[in-house]
Amino acid sequence: MMRTDGYPLSEAARTGHPLDTVIVCGESSVMGGGQFAVIAGPCSVENEAQMIDVAKKVKASGARFLRGGAFKPRTSPYDFQGLGSEGIELLKAARRETGLPIVTEITDVRMLHMFEDVDIIQVGARNAQNFELLKELGKCHKPVLLKRGLAGTIRELLLSAEYVMASGNSRVILCERGIRTYENVYTRNTLDLSAVPVLKEITHLPVVVDPSHGTGKASLVPSMALAAVAAGADGLMIEVHSDPVHAFSDGEQSLTPEMFDELMKKVKRIREAL
Amino acid sequence: MMRTDGYPLSEAARTGHPLDTVIVCGESSVMGGGQFAVIAGPCSVENEAQMIDVAKKVKASGARFLRGGAFKPRTSPYDFQGLGSEGIELLKAARRETGLPIVTEITDVRMLHMFEDVDIIQVGARNAQNFELLKELGKCHKPVLLKRGLAGTIRELLLSAEYVMASGNSRVILCERGIRTYENVYTRNTLDLSAVPVLKEITHLPVVVDPSHGTGKASLVPSMALAAVAAGADGLMIEVHSDPVHAFSDGEQSLTPEMFDELMKKVKRIREAL
Amino acid sequence: MMRTDGYPLSEAARTGHPLDTVIVCGESSVMGGGQFAVIAGPCSVENEAQMIDVAKKVKASGARFLRGGAFKPRTSPYDFQGLGSEGIELLKAARRETGLPIVTEITDVRMLHMFEDVDIIQVGARNAQNFELLKELGKCHKPVLLKRGLAGTIRELLLSAEYVMASGNSRVILCERGIRTYENVYTRNTLDLSAVPVLKEITHLPVVVDPSHGTGKASLVPSMALAAVAAGADGLMIEVHSDPVHAFSDGEQSLTPEMFDELMKKVKRIREAL
Amino acid sequence: MMRTDGYPLSEAARTGHPLDTVIVCGESSVMGGGQFAVIAGPCSVENEAQMIDVAKKVKASGARFLRGGAFKPRTSPYDFQGLGSEGIELLKAARRETGLPIVTEITDVRMLHMFEDVDIIQVGARNAQNFELLKELGKCHKPVLLKRGLAGTIRELLLSAEYVMASGNSRVILCERGIRTYENVYTRNTLDLSAVPVLKEITHLPVVVDPSHGTGKASLVPSMALAAVAAGADGLMIEVHSDPVHAFSDGEQSLTPEMFDELMKKVKRIREAL
Repeated sequence: MMRTDGYPLSEAARTGHPLDTVIVCGESSVMGGGQFAVIAGPCSVENEAQMIDVAKKVKASGARFLRGGAFKPRTSPYDFQGLGSEGIELLKAARRETGLPIVTEITDVRMLHMFEDVDIIQVGARNAQNFELLKELGKCHKPVLLKRGLAGTIRELLLSAEYVMASGNSRVILCERGIRTYENVYTRNTLDLSAVPVLKEITHLPVVVDPSHGTGKASLVPSMALAAVAAGADGLMIEVHSDPVHAFSDGEQSLTPEMFDELMKKVKRIREAL
Repeated sequence: MMRTDGYPLSEAARTGHPLDTVIVCGESSVMGGGQFAVIAGPCSVENEAQMIDVAKKVKASGARFLRGGAFKPRTSPYDFQGLGSEGIELLKAARRETGLPIVTEITDVRMLHMFEDVDIIQVGARNAQNFELLKELGKCHKPVLLKRGLAGTIRELLLSAEYVMASGNSRVILCERGIRTYENVYTRNTLDLSAVPVLKEITHLPVVVDPSHGTGKASLVPSMALAAVAAGADGLMIEVHSDPVHAFSDGEQSLTPEMFDELMKKVKRIREAL
Repeated sequence: MMRTDGYPLSEAARTGHPLDTVIVCGESSVMGGGQFAVIAGPCSVENEAQMIDVAKKVKASGARFLRGGAFKPRTSPYDFQGLGSEGIELLKAARRETGLPIVTEITDVRMLHMFEDVDIIQVGARNAQNFELLKELGKCHKPVLLKRGLAGTIRELLLSAEYVMASGNSRVILCERGIRTYENVYTRNTLDLSAVPVLKEITHLPVVVDPSHGTGKASLVPSMALAAVAAGADGLMIEVHSDPVHAFSDGEQSLTPEMFDELMKKVKRIREAL
Repeated sequence: MMRTDGYPLSEAARTGHPLDTVIVCGESSVMGGGQFAVIAGPCSVENEAQMIDVAKKVKASGARFLRGGAFKPRTSPYDFQGLGSEGIELLKAARRETGLPIVTEITDVRMLHMFEDVDIIQVGARNAQNFELLKELGKCHKPVLLKRGLAGTIRELLLSAEYVMASGNSRVILCERGIRTYENVYTRNTLDLSAVPVLKEITHLPVVVDPSHGTGKASLVPSMALAAVAAGADGLMIEVHSDPVHAFSDGEQSLTPEMFDELMKKVKRIREAL
């Protein structure tokens, strides 16, 4: 049995909730309880042609959800901050074309009304302990994809989920996206895949892995994606861009649609082997 | 010359702004530019008698600002979340009694109107990269005390200050409060005092040190407070509680007023020696 | 292309040595160059019956090498320090019974003569930068299994291998065994599986993963072992003990022979899927 | 009372040994029990003129011990490895000229006979858990200066001291020299000054701080040295080189004799203020 160190988990604990939580968006996009699903798309939403193009391609390769950043939390105020509400409109256009449910990040509690048409609301690493935001998301009726903090502990991730759930929303997806360690020369973060089996023991919530932020380097993404599948993840979140060199953000860690297609074939084989 | 790694600092950089920024609140509460000041008070505001009692005592020992948490960002949703707006009223009552300017933490951008009578608005470690909050604080006319993130880099702290300053508010105080490392048995965080001379080289903003959160243990606070002074800090932020054993939060790291008084005498001697 | 940050790699670099190094011990124990191999056995050698029993069992499940600690580097001087040279005799007895080549750790350069009959000499995490030991191992004619330091960087691991190789011994196996991070509640170390594809890009040396030390918890070992295989590791190093509860050391992270057998079947399926 | 987490300390614990251990080398070089002392000198011994010159200068400024590396543990095998036994001869020459006791690092247990004329034997960060070396040092009759590991915990440092003491040598000096954290842009390591009051609570052994390795940058050394004094350290270990730009190793973190002299005046003032 895992240590809980005095912090009681109620809603998020597997104890008392033995059945896996399953997140369902439409007929074919299901995650958890043995259903594996991949979320793919560009780091930032850039324009309509880009979004529709990449959405069609990732769908053809087997992705079940479309991601894209409209509001971008950037370390520097002088970096591209995202297209904002226009970005959400472009995601919706891509959804109309492909049927893929859309996942995008919220960075301000005051923006919540803009997310009414979004399928899954993402909370990024920098807001993983923005507790007032988590409480508000607990009152809405949409699945929340909650990323582990930049240097968040597993316990903190679970307690942030508990904030959402204690406020009334039990549809939370947990996302491992790499943690901050001294090893930052070859990788942007250290992807902590052991968090996957740890979380699967403690909680009934689905666990996805983001190897794009987790490594920061496209050449490492396929290996880490396959490793995440083998470790028992319920899903993956992968950045895909048709022209990574010219991406507005995080191009260095984006796969091309061709690389993504190749990866999805291997993911399928690993899934079948398990 | 320090590396900036491609992230340009504009407002926060000492280059082009050689003079130290000085924060002034009334006649006797001044920090920066050679003026040293101590912020003291309880972790959480608990009741009026407590606040007034501790405010009088820390003032008598030489504190220049009063701290107290009204909105508490807690890891678990089941922990005490603070008195909220009532807590701010109690801080104001203590200010009326003592004349000490008050410093308290904001945890939600929607609460900003409640902080109109607060003297310095604190941004805690968990909101150090809540960029939308930082932008709003850039539009207000109050000094902002910005804590380093839980595992924030020095560069991220500077860029968070830059968010506030680029939005129009140049009165930012930087606060080192310990970083997250593997060494978490004997100390809650690892107080990174080398951040003090690093920041003093790069920026003109005042730098304060919080040895209470930085160590998490009252017995270590005096040594680390004196070390911070010797390292060149412009101020200290110290948790003081009349009855630490019964504090609503963080009692383990709170000094009693007697311990604080003893510390302030030593701080004075170190300041004179420098 | 990976950054090398001014530290030149010569012998260990893939540049100029495009072919994978292959470690061969007898007919059936081969690692590297597409050959996958598992090293298994108890943390500490305890007695002859234990060693022979576990050796037979791990061989039956498909292990290609036998491990067991004779000289144990323990954090406290009051902990069990290993059976010493008698432990090596017991490993040899198990080799006679099973034919499995033996891998055991050296902790003192003066002991090198005792390792004449050992097949692979292991350098543990605490000696990963014991450069004088590495130089001596560079003069011997046995493969060296080099573990990453407790908080070693990937670059340091490569440069430690370079110490061995520059002294004349090119048969080095690199071992990822978890790094020290702030996340030490649920796992003993953080297994850095991204080191696997990073190392495979930079070097021609075989890379094995030790999920036993990497997680410190038996329940997490199978998931992380499978993840390591999917990430592209050339081998695994797994602690197996017939009676983990009564093991002299590290019982908490040891698999039983039954769990190991189950794991090996899954490893085989993942290998085939890749 | 500090947690010991099940690892018993015997010889190193203050419990049962309430009096501070005092290290005495000759009449004027005393450390511990209220006696403060500074160890200074170049990173590497380079030649006789250099050693005698710097020894005279640091003595004139108030240093009580002379340091200099003869055997250098370097990350890369292709870096300067030290002058070896010739380096020890040059240190002895500098001792003859100045009377300062000499401190130098051992990197191989087989070299112990070369250290017969050395006054204090240093164990570096990379050998902090080279337990066989520690056991041998426990049998010799010289003070041992034991550095904290690269990412060593406080508990590990204490248990390494316990290895020396349990073997019979109670004269151990503990040295905080910075730990490995994610913050490695502005500083080489993160100097953990809170280790000073923690260690002073738990053990009776003297505690020195090395701000040169702790920061890796000469401009930060004076601030951190003063902070260490204010935190309660029993001594400092400072790298001083007459011509840092041309130093064989670690020139970036070396003070010039003039900077060292200036620092020593401030150290004296802080000591008097305490």
